[in-house]
Amino acid sequence: MNAPLRIGVAGLGTVGGGVVKLLTEHSRLLSVRAGRPIRLVAVSARSRAKKRDFALDGVRWERDPLALAEATDIDVVVELIGGSAGVARRLVQRAIARGKHVVTANKALLAMHGSQIALAAEKRGVAVAFEAAVAGGIPVVKALREGLVGNRVRRLYGILNGTCNYILSTMRETGRDFATVLAEAQQAGYAEADPSFDVDGIDAAHKLAVLTGAAFGAKVNFAGIHVEGIRRVSAMDIAFADELGHRIKLLGLARETRDGIEQRVHPCMVPLAAPIAHIEGVFNAVVVEGDFVGTTMFQGRGAGQGPTASAVVADLVDLARGRVMPAFVVPAERLADRAAAPMDRHVGAYYMRLMVQDQPGVIAAVSSILARHHISLESMLQRGRSPEGAVAVVLTTHSTQEARMRRAAEQIGRLKAVTEPPCLIRIEQF
Amino acid sequence: MNAPLRIGVAGLGTVGGGVVKLLTEHSRLLSVRAGRPIRLVAVSARSRAKKRDFALDGVRWERDPLALAEATDIDVVVELIGGSAGVARRLVQRAIARGKHVVTANKALLAMHGSQIALAAEKRGVAVAFEAAVAGGIPVVKALREGLVGNRVRRLYGILNGTCNYILSTMRETGRDFATVLAEAQQAGYAEADPSFDVDGIDAAHKLAVLTGAAFGAKVNFAGIHVEGIRRVSAMDIAFADELGHRIKLLGLARETRDGIEQRVHPCMVPLAAPIAHIEGVFNAVVVEGDFVGTTMFQGRGAGQGPTASAVVADLVDLARGRVMPAFVVPAERLADRAAAPMDRHVGAYYMRLMVQDQPGVIAAVSSILARHHISLESMLQRGRSPEGAVAVVLTTHSTQEARMRRAAEQIGRLKAVTEPPCLIRIEQF
Repeated sequence: MNAPLRIGVAGLGTVGGGVVKLLTEHSRLLSVRAGRPIRLVAVSARSRAKKRDFALDGVRWERDPLALAEATDIDVVVELIGGSAGVARRLVQRAIARGKHVVTANKALLAMHGSQIALAAEKRGVAVAFEAAVAGGIPVVKALREGLVGNRVRRLYGILNGTCNYILSTMRETGRDFATVLAEAQQAGYAEADPSFDVDGIDAAHKLAVLTGAAFGAKVNFAGIHVEGIRRVSAMDIAFADELGHRIKLLGLARETRDGIEQRVHPCMVPLAAPIAHIEGVFNAVVVEGDFVGTTMFQGRGAGQGPTASAVVADLVDLARGRVMPAFVVPAERLADRAAAPMDRHVGAYYMRLMVQDQPGVIAAVSSILARHHISLESMLQRGRSPEGAVAVVLTTHSTQEARMRRAAEQIGRLKAVTEPPCLIRIEQF
Repeated sequence: MNAPLRIGVAGLGTVGGGVVKLLTEHSRLLSVRAGRPIRLVAVSARSRAKKRDFALDGVRWERDPLALAEATDIDVVVELIGGSAGVARRLVQRAIARGKHVVTANKALLAMHGSQIALAAEKRGVAVAFEAAVAGGIPVVKALREGLVGNRVRRLYGILNGTCNYILSTMRETGRDFATVLAEAQQAGYAEADPSFDVDGIDAAHKLAVLTGAAFGAKVNFAGIHVEGIRRVSAMDIAFADELGHRIKLLGLARETRDGIEQRVHPCMVPLAAPIAHIEGVFNAVVVEGDFVGTTMFQGRGAGQGPTASAVVADLVDLARGRVMPAFVVPAERLADRAAAPMDRHVGAYYMRLMVQDQPGVIAAVSSILARHHISLESMLQRGRSPEGAVAVVLTTHSTQEARMRRAAEQIGRLKAVTEPPCLIRIEQF
C-alpha cells in the first residue's frame, strides 16, 4: 500500500463533522479507490468540549488552526471555518506558503480572493480545490474544469441557494408571503437566524463568482456581479408568474456579451418549459451551455452534511491520486482580466407589475410611456376590478435594454394613478 | 510551452469529424487549459476520398488503423470505429500493448471486454478513457469515478438512449403508435435504418454495463443485464400512463440487492414527480443515488457530433494534464466479481393492461388469480364499454416479486375472456 495522504481539518461544524464521518465510514473504500489511505491526522475547532456525534480517536487536537498549516505530518489542510477574512484566510495562505494542498468549502473567501489564492498555490506547486464551495452535491466545478473543458462556455446559470429556492417554492405552494415563509423556514432550520446572506443574494453571488471564474477562465470578480435578493418578491407576483406559465427563481447567471462578462443574481421569471423551472425546495441546479456540448444541467442537494462532505472528499481523493490542477480551468497566471458588462446594457424581457387606481386612461398613459422608450408589450393582464382601491396590472415586454426599462418604470411610477413603485422582474429566455 | 500531446484518430464519421473540428477550432484554448498543445498527428478511416467538412492539412493518413498503434510519434490513440470485435478491438489492444493511452467512444467494446481492457491498460501503465461512450454530453463517467467517488452508490438509473426517448416522447405527444413514429424518426435521421440496436435496448444496456462498472467498482457484466426494448409499448399504454400520472421511459437501472447487483433495461412507468420523467426527446439523463451525496441528476445531449466530441476532448485534456486513472473507479485488479441479481427476484410494483371481453365475472377471475399469488392491487382502471369487442382494463399493483407477477400474468392470459397476453410494465419508485 502506498503512503497515506495525511490531512488536517479546521472547523468541525456540520461540514467538518460530515467529512470526519465519511472518512471514517468509508476508509477502506476510499483507500482502494484512491490507491492509498486518506488519514485524518489532526483537527482544530473552536470548542474541544462540545458534544459531537463522531469519534476522534487517535486524531491530534490543535487549539490553533494555523498549527495545521505548520505541521510537518500533514499534506492537505481542509479549511471549513468559513468567512472571507480572519483565520480562514490566514490558514489558507499559511498552508499554501508551507507547501500544503488546500481543500476548502469557503465560497466567500474564494469570491473575494480566489484568483490571488490560486496564483499563490500555483507558484508553490500545490492545489487549491473547492468542489464543496458551490452546490455541494453537484460536482460542477469538476465539470467546468475537466468534463466540459473542451467547450467555450456561452452562458451558465443556476439555482445556487437552497434557502431562497425553498422559500420561493413554499410561497408558491402555500400562497403565503415572504415574511411568513421565511419565519417558518427559520423555525425548521432551513434559514439562518440572520437570513440576509441568503435572501439578499450574497451567498448565491459568491458561488456565481467562483463558477464564472472556472467557466470562463477569468479572474474571479465578485464586485462585478449585479445582486438583488428575494425580499421584494410578493405572493401576488408568484401567482401572476403561474398564470403566465412561469416560475420565479433566484438565479445566478453569467454570460459572454460584447461588453464583457455579465454576471447577475436576481429573481427571474423562468418559463415552465425550462428544466430549471422545476427544481424545487432545497435543491440546487446548474446549467452550462457550451459551444460543442450544447445545454447540460446538473442537479442535486446544494448544502447539508452529506453532500458537502462528499464534495470535500472528492477533492481529497483527487489529491490522493496525485491530481494537482489549476484552480480555475487555466493556470492562474493566464486567468483573463475580463470587464464586467454593465447592468444598464443588459438586454432582456421584463415583467412589470403595477398597482393602479382603477380609472380610465391609466393603461393609455402607461402604454405611451413604454412606447416613448421604444419598449413593446408582449402581454397585459389585469386581475379583478376595484373602483375603490388599487388593482394589479401586469405587463410583459419584448426584449429591451435595462436602462430603458428602468427609466420607463420610473416615469410610470410617477403617474398619479400608480399607487406604488412598479415591481420589475426580468424574464429569462433559455 | 510543454511538449504537445500527440494523438491519432481512427474513424472519421460523425464523432471523429467532431473531434477534428473541436481540436482545430479550440486549439489555442485547449493548449492553455491543458498546459500543452494537443496535436492531431495522424488519422485513419475507411475512405480517404470521401468529402468531409473539415480540413486535415499536415495530418498523416494511415490506411491501416493499426498503424496508429505502432506509430512512434503518437501518445494517444482515439478509437472511434465502433463495434465490440474486429478492428476496433484489435486497435485498442495493440495501442495498449505499445504503451499508448486509449480514448474511445465504443460502448459495445467496453460492455463486452471492459474489465480485461482496463486490466491490460493498467499493467502497461496507460489509461483507457471513455467519457464519450455513455451519454456524450454528460460528464457522468467522470462524476462516478471522481466527483462522487466518496459515496457508496445505492442505485443509478438513466435515460441512456436518445432514439428510444425521442420515440416515446413523440408517441405521447402525437398519440401515434410505435411503428409510425419509428418510421418518421428514421426519415428524420433520429433512428437508424436497422433500429434494433436502439429500440431493443441493446445500446442502453451497453451503456448501463459501463456505468455499473464505474459506479460499483465491479467487473463489467453485460451478460448480467435483463434487457427489454420498447417495441411492445403501445399508444394505449402511453395514454394510460398519462392518466395514472406517469410517463413511460426506457430506463437502464442498476442497484445493490442482497442477491448481487441488479441491472436491467426496460420500459418503466415513472411518476411525474420524478425529475427524470420530464426528460424529453433526444436528451439523456443519469441519476446517481449515493449514501452521502443523496440524489443527483445529470442531463444533456446523449449523442451527436458536438456533445460526443466534447467528451472525447475532455479525456484528451485529462491525459494532457497527466491524469492516468483506473478506468472503473478502482484499480482493474481490484474490480469486484459481483453476482448478477436474478430478475425473478426483482421486487417492485407493476402495471398490467388486459384486453378483455366485456362480460360479468372477468374482473373477479383476474382478482382472484392475483390474490392467490399474494399480489395486492393498488388501482384499477377501465376505459369505455364495448359489449362486442375487447376493452382495456388496467391494474396497478403494490410491490411484489417478479416471478410471482409473471406467473399470475400467465394464468390471467389463459382466461377465456382475456383476448391477448397481458402487457406488463414495471412501475419504478424513486
